[in-house]
Parts: sequence; structure tokens; C-alpha cells
Amino acid sequence: MNIIDIIEKKKHSEELSEEEIKYLIDNYVNGNIPDYQMSALLMAIYFNKLNIDETYFLTKSMVLSGETIKLDKVKGIKVDKHSTGGVGDSVTLVLGPLMASVGLVFAKMSGRGLGHTGGTLDKLESIPGFNISLTDEEFINNLNESHIAVIGQTADIVPADKLLYALRDATATVDNVSLISSSILSKKIALANDALVLDVKVGKGAFMKDVESATELSKLMVELGKKFNRKTKAIITNMNEPLGKAIGNSLEVIEAIETLRGEGPKALEEISVTIGSKLMHMCGKTEDEEEAKNILHENLRNGKAIEKFKEMVKLQGGDISYIDNTKKFELSKIKCEIYSNESGYVKEIDALEIGIASRDLGAGRLTKEDKLDLGAGILLNKKIGDYVNEGELLATLYTNKEDVVKDVAKRIEDAFSFSDDKENYELILKEID
Amino acid sequence: MNIIDIIEKKKHSEELSEEEIKYLIDNYVNGNIPDYQMSALLMAIYFNKLNIDETYFLTKSMVLSGETIKLDKVKGIKVDKHSTGGVGDSVTLVLGPLMASVGLVFAKMSGRGLGHTGGTLDKLESIPGFNISLTDEEFINNLNESHIAVIGQTADIVPADKLLYALRDATATVDNVSLISSSILSKKIALANDALVLDVKVGKGAFMKDVESATELSKLMVELGKKFNRKTKAIITNMNEPLGKAIGNSLEVIEAIETLRGEGPKALEEISVTIGSKLMHMCGKTEDEEEAKNILHENLRNGKAIEKFKEMVKLQGGDISYIDNTKKFELSKIKCEIYSNESGYVKEIDALEIGIASRDLGAGRLTKEDKLDLGAGILLNKKIGDYVNEGELLATLYTNKEDVVKDVAKRIEDAFSFSDDKENYELILKEID
Repeated sequence: MNIIDIIEKKKHSEELSEEEIKYLIDNYVNGNIPDYQMSALLMAIYFNKLNIDETYFLTKSMVLSGETIKLDKVKGIKVDKHSTGGVGDSVTLVLGPLMASVGLVFAKMSGRGLGHTGGTLDKLESIPGFNISLTDEEFINNLNESHIAVIGQTADIVPADKLLYALRDATATVDNVSLISSSILSKKIALANDALVLDVKVGKGAFMKDVESATELSKLMVELGKKFNRKTKAIITNMNEPLGKAIGNSLEVIEAIETLRGEGPKALEEISVTIGSKLMHMCGKTEDEEEAKNILHENLRNGKAIEKFKEMVKLQGGDISYIDNTKKFELSKIKCEIYSNESGYVKEIDALEIGIASRDLGAGRLTKEDKLDLGAGILLNKKIGDYVNEGELLATLYTNKEDVVKDVAKRIEDAFSFSDDKENYELILKEID
Repeated sequence: MNIIDIIEKKKHSEELSEEEIKYLIDNYVNGNIPDYQMSALLMAIYFNKLNIDETYFLTKSMVLSGETIKLDKVKGIKVDKHSTGGVGDSVTLVLGPLMASVGLVFAKMSGRGLGHTGGTLDKLESIPGFNISLTDEEFINNLNESHIAVIGQTADIVPADKLLYALRDATATVDNVSLISSSILSKKIALANDALVLDVKVGKGAFMKDVESATELSKLMVELGKKFNRKTKAIITNMNEPLGKAIGNSLEVIEAIETLRGEGPKALEEISVTIGSKLMHMCGKTEDEEEAKNILHENLRNGKAIEKFKEMVKLQGGDISYIDNTKKFELSKIKCEIYSNESGYVKEIDALEIGIASRDLGAGRLTKEDKLDLGAGILLNKKIGDYVNEGELLATLYTNKEDVVKDVAKRIEDAFSFSDDKENYELILKEID
């Protein structure tokens, strides 16, 4: 077996065997196959695609390229979610405690923000003391004690994905549904949960630009998850505006806390409850999703959800006084309000532009090495469907970077578009079983 | 301008501009663009192709990546030929002196053998003292003095091709007609000749496996040559058997000398004269190719051609007593005759197998570092169309490697196939103007 023959096969649209794919990943990770051969193969895959079996073998080989985390010692049914990356999307912070509040185990490996999208780890670290680096033992103990723990992905998890993703990023071979799926699923499979709901975002601020491609990706990931014997479903959700009203780390944690108290923005609650209801139903907690939704909405209002959040924060070393009093979160010093020059119904709030604006304020990273300003970000005062009068407040920005304020304020203003009529905004576009 | 955008464009089948292609080659050669990005682009080119303009800009950028050799100081019309690589193909050794004998200048940069094909430089070096490393000044002086000189390609000529070829070889991106054409033509254009005839081989021992793909390649190279204002034609020739009867370095030089005396194999003379007649006609030396052919056949018999060969050998430091007495060439010590187990007309002599056999005897290289045995090789006693009786001599092999004799003898025997009827063997399959 050699890499040139494998490239040649895929060039001619032949199916690669499990052995060939395993050879490929093993030898790429150990350095025997150089980047230049792998990138040629990735481009051949872009053109000739991988079928479901090849995608499964690829994902499996990627999982086996590193460590996996077994959860045998954790009692109960373990659930997981994944979002393809949104703006103002703190669903994990709301969903996790919700799942724990109904007796499911929420064992989550999360990531950091990059580019215009935020990351759960960064958000959680805006709670002073919060530790995302638990040992496997601590992780398992916390899960058994409170049914919820959120940790960072260690270097040993799916090393093949780290290498492949960096290479794809540098060689214009990101946009292939099998490569995307294997990248996402490998990391999910490496952590032995029982059920998974994928939230595939569509729109300007999202990785997928249209419902059609999001559907293709969702279907493949659901099929793939099932091949690994994981209960898997997906929802496709709209990212034509940021999900919540808060964009930025501390701001999103505050918003998540409000949502966990039943006082958050409707869209954030809706997505969290929808994903949660699917997980509950998939795991046999309720007869149907409707029943689950009722329980979850209830738990956001009766204190059970916020209580679980506090338990997690406490167990992971965070200062829970911030949860009880969100005024303790220190926001960035410069505050600037942005007012509308137009009147009309908000038609769209370009989530990509808002994400970039937030990043420029200090809330996000351009490169992995950038330091974050956890108190920076944007609070939206208006969302799609709201009527705005000229001169009314659109948004408030927070930053410590004086020099960017003017440009970013303009960017935020430009992100809003208006229409004379109120348009319907469909949040959940599709559900894939 | 950046490489990822360029890859993305070609991925989506967009045309690359001259500036983009120049940026690409310049930055690849100076190391700013790594192999892994270039190989991804090469694979995208394999799938989405380059049009004639892109191929021209690529070739031009490759030429400009290194030194070029001007021939302004050489009087007369300068002609060149290129073969895509055959077995038993010593046309250059015959054509060069022929061209000089009719007053054209044969200024040639040649290569070494690799794999199953031989190289003109290795063949010439089997003449003791022959020096293929002339300075530019010596090259020009020799051309002015005798109208013929054959040198090696210096490291400064088209460095982009050396890098690209090695990368294509390692990434299964060799077989694209634009990449092949730019590789061949860039080296031809870097040496400022006036006219060029390309000999595109077809068959098992050749790079092109069928007439259709050879025609596509030939047409593109002829069009490309003309874009560089070089008179360019191509012929497509049959490689279903080795061209001459000799395969191996000293053996082929001896055969070329015999041919230059009008006593060589018919096929070698025919191709040499055909290419030569095209060059003469293209350069206005004759009214038509027929007239040119007559002159060339004549010069092989009246001593003019062999005289030019001797002049070249002398000017390049070779011992001309070997030309006068070819018995002086020392062949390898072990000689083994191969007899036929069958009777019938020779239908095919697999040139790839004969090339590999010759390489294994010591006449060729597996890797660039391998040392050659210049006296090793094969002499065919029968060619396509000849009748062979069982027990009759098929071929003789020469080697210093005792351990390979048995296997190679078998390989040579197996390379012959027979039929009951004599079949026509068409040597020149197509001519492309």
C-alpha cells in the first residue's frame, strides 16, 4: 500500500478501502505521509467525494489516531450537542444545566472561539476561577456528582483532526461535506456519550450558506453518528441574525444566566429547549418532544436549571457569587451606544459582520495566539421583527480599544437592514432524524 | 494576491490571470508557497484543467524562473528536437549530425536516463573523454565552428520545472496535458532555438498510452511553441517495440554510428530523417519535406553526417578513434543469447519490458543516484514483422551483474509476442503542424 496509489485511486473516483484509509491517517499522523501528498488527496476528495462508508472509515481512523474518553464509570445516560458555530450562541451554557436538571448527564468537550465565532471555553473562563482543564478522574467525578461538566479538548484527542484541519484551511479543501463531517464527528465519537443533537447553522454568520448544503451535511452527520451506534439527530437553524442579544464572553454568560432564570431572549431559549427536548425524547425520558419541552421551559422558571449551572461552576472552581449577582462581571471600560439613522422593521442583522465587530472589539481572536478581552462585546437592543424609530438605540458596544470604536460602531450600524413590513423570522428551519 | 484564493479559483474552474500564475511560480520557487499548497493546486488543475492562455503563462513563468541561453552570437538557423522518451531511441545522435550536415545549427540540451528510458547524455558519455558540461562560451564557439553541440541542462535552467516535476511525481499529478506541456516546452524555450520538432511516443514503453492523448498533447505543445514565436511541429510515433535494435548506452552509440554511415536499422533512420526533413522545410532549406528527405538519406551515405558527428565528438573532448572503430567500445563481460521457444511473425516487443530489462542489466537507473554500466544492454536480433523459427536467436544481453541474467533473459523472452500472420507496423502514426 502506498500513498501515490491511494491518490491515484481517488483521482479516478475509485472507492478507498478501510485498510487504505487507516493506512493514510496512521501514516499522516506519524509523519510518514507528508502534507503535500495529503493535500493532493484532499483536493481529489473535494472533486470526487467520499461515500458514506469511506467517510465512516475516515472518521473511525481519526478517532483511533488519539485518546478516547470512556464514560463507563459515569452513571446515567450521557448526552451531547454540537453547533457548527454561530454568533451570540450560548446554547451550551443553557442546555447543559437543563439536561442535568432532568437527570441526563451532560458531558461536554468544548472549544475556543476563532475568527467571528465565540467558544464556550472562553465564555466560561469569564467566570473568575472557572477551570476547564479537569483530569479524566475529576471530569468523571463531577459528572457523577452534578451530572454536568464542560472541559477543553486535550491535545491527545483526535490529533489527526488538528493536523488535517490546519492543512485543509491552508489548501482550500475545507468545503467538502465528508471532510467536515469526519472532523466534527470524530471529536464527538472520541467522548463516549449516548446521544447527540447537532445544531447546523445557516446564514451569513454561519459555515453553511444555504439550507440545501446544511441539509446534506446534517443528513450525512446523522447517518454517520448512527453508524457509530450513537443516537443522533440534527436541527438546521437560522443565523441571519445573532442568536441571542449578547455577543462577547462575559456578556453571553450573563445572558445565559438570565435565560437559565427564564428571563433570556426567546430565540436562545427556543433552541436550547428544542435540542434538549430531542435529547430527552431520544433517551426515553418522555413520550414525545412536546412533553419534554414543557418540562424544560418549566425548569428554566422553577430554579432547577440555574441551580445546576451553579453546581457546575462551583465544582469547576468558579466564583458562584457572579452567578447570583451578574453585575459583578466587569465589562470593558469604553461603552458606546449606536443609534439608528433609519426607521423601519429590522429585516436582518448580518451575523458575520456582528461577529467580526465583536472580534475587533477584543472579544474574539484573529489567530489562535490572540489574547481575549473577556469584557468586550456587543449588546443588541433590537432584533429581527422589532420596529425601530430613527434615533432609537440599536446596540451598545464594550471595548478597551479606543482606536477601533468608530469603525466598529459603523460596522454594527451597517449590519442592520430594515424594511417597511414586518417579516417572519423562522428560527428552526429543518429537523433531521 | 494569495495562494488560497488562487487554489479556490481553480477549484471553481475560473481562469487564472498571468499575474496570478507569475505570483504562483515566483513564490513557489523562492519558497514562500509551500509544497502542500502547490500540490493542492496541481490536483485542482488536474480536474479543472488549464486553458491555452493559462498554459502559456505557466510556461512563460517557468522559463523566467531561471537562466535562459541566448544564441544571438551563433550564426545560422538553430533547430531543436524533443522526444517524450522512448526505448532504443538514439534519434538525437543521428539527427544532430544530419542537421549540421545541411548547414542548420543543432544546439541541444539533453537529459539523462531515468527508469526504463535512456538519456542522450549517458549515451554520449560512453565515448571516452566526451564532455557534456560546456561553458556557455564553449557551447557557442562549438556551434559556430561545427554547427552542433550537445550539453547537459544546468541547474539554473527552469528551476521551477525541477521542483514542480518532483512534486507532481510524488502527488499523482503528472498526467495533465498542460502540466506536461509546460514542463517540456519551458526547457525548450529557455534555449533560444528557431525551430522545434517534437516526437511524441505512443505505446507500452511510452509516456502516452494511446494516439488520442498523444494527439491532444502534441496539438497543445505545437500551439504553445508557436505562441513563443518558435516554429513548432510534432510527430506521433509508435513505441510498440524499441525504436532501434540496440538498447543500452554504448550499444546505442554504436548503432547511431552505423546509422550515420547508412547502415543502421530502418526505423531509426526513418524517424531521424522525418524529423530532419520537417526542420529543413520549416527553416526554408527546401521546397518540401520530400526534397529534404532525399538530401538527408544521401548525407547518411556520402559520409557527411558521420563527419559532423566526429567533429562534435572531437570538439567536446571525445576519443574519435571509437567512432572509426566501434569495436573499441567495451561491452559488459557477461553475454547471454536468448532463443525463441516459438515460431511465428514477431507481433510486438513490449518496449516497457525491454526498457526495464535493460535497466536491470545496469544500463539504466532506478533512482537519480544509481551508477550506470555503460557497456550493458540488449541487442535485438528480431523486430516486428520478422519471421522467427523456434530455436532462433531473439536477442543478446550484456551485463556485469551475474545474478540478474536469468530473470532478465526471461523478461526479454516474454516481451516478444508472435502471430501467424505478418502484421503491418506503422511507425509514424500522425503528423501535427
